[in-house]
Amino acid sequence: MKQQTKISEAVVRRLPLYLQALNELSRGEVQTVSSQALGRKLDLNPAQIRKDLAYFGEFGRKGIGYDVSYLISKIRHILKLDRGINVALVGAGNLGQALCNYNRYSRDNMKIVAVFDDHPDKIGMHINTMRVQPMEELKATVEALQIRIGIITVPAAAAQKVADQLADAGIEGILNFAPAILKVPPSVRVHHADFTTELLSLAYYLEKDADHDDDKVVD
Amino acid sequence: MKQQTKISEAVVRRLPLYLQALNELSRGEVQTVSSQALGRKLDLNPAQIRKDLAYFGEFGRKGIGYDVSYLISKIRHILKLDRGINVALVGAGNLGQALCNYNRYSRDNMKIVAVFDDHPDKIGMHINTMRVQPMEELKATVEALQIRIGIITVPAAAAQKVADQLADAGIEGILNFAPAILKVPPSVRVHHADFTTELLSLAYYLEKDADHDDDKVVD
Repeated sequence: MKQQTKISEAVVRRLPLYLQALNELSRGEVQTVSSQALGRKLDLNPAQIRKDLAYFGEFGRKGIGYDVSYLISKIRHILKLDRGINVALVGAGNLGQALCNYNRYSRDNMKIVAVFDDHPDKIGMHINTMRVQPMEELKATVEALQIRIGIITVPAAAAQKVADQLADAGIEGILNFAPAILKVPPSVRVHHADFTTELLSLAYYLEKDADHDDDKVVD
Repeated sequence: MKQQTKISEAVVRRLPLYLQALNELSRGEVQTVSSQALGRKLDLNPAQIRKDLAYFGEFGRKGIGYDVSYLISKIRHILKLDRGINVALVGAGNLGQALCNYNRYSRDNMKIVAVFDDHPDKIGMHINTMRVQPMEELKATVEALQIRIGIITVPAAAAQKVADQLADAGIEGILNFAPAILKVPPSVRVHHADFTTELLSLAYYLEKDADHDDDKVVD
């Protein structure tokens, strides 16, 4: 029986937050941290944190807490970030360029190593050290660089076609920034980073003008 | 009894997707659409779509479907996008600049109208027609331009301070791009657009190497 099959999505989604908090502590040269201190940092119940981390074995020591470096390496291992994961980005517009420049996740061993676009104006352009490649080169590049994750930053209308191409090239995970629901084969996992939806749905909760008391109540 | 208090978060989050699909149809000069056709476009059950839209009254006609323009205006009204909502962005780095240039949501009446940063190198810089302003000007600008939503694109370590400043300035909604959990007063609603978390947690689901069959099973 594999251990990882028992971990819920909610826990998996909290792990990057733990990693982020621990990286910060590590940069501040903090060596051990209690679940209470982590809880305050992340606004999470310490018992929740202990429970989450217990999924992966016992790392904390009573009265001392967690060893920060050890916990970082353990979470990176669990998230499979200890081996380095190559990422391709499709859509070299403003957002795509920003993500390439941003590349903060690279310190977590995940790195955008190739950029694609199908527009003649974009192809050949340089972003950092990467040359924007035509979509025709996608499959060969994914294979050559062992790229496993694709980021989609094309307009919504083009997103499905790109998802098909990524799936066809053997990509296993997609981070989709387009406000579109993608159909992919079961071998591909899609996460959404659709901030347009997040932004527009925020508006619904505004308007405190009329009924201050209940305008935020939802089912 | 207010009607909106009965709408679940899940429905509210689907409305921008409907809006996006309908905008596309409208640009293609499609005048009516059935719940079946919308369902195929969004990979949603037509019955689900009819149920969602029924929350807001009966807009569809049997055998004809929904009037695209009417439905667009109705959803915009429900999301309170018919009046125009001003947005401030804090953090004029790569990501912040991309979001300002992107501004796709502006066709949905939501627009970034002011940009702030606290770094001397950034202050005074121009992004589109906006001058990057120092944080000291936040409160007065939020008031003058009736800004209601704030976007946070600063590093995680600075996010809480910025959230405090936005709340203090009277902002009602925050879209947070920083991988940090924010504490805000109950009058402020926070949505997360934390793609780093989405990206890093994708990695967990990779690795099909060993056990092809069950490595994606979650609780």
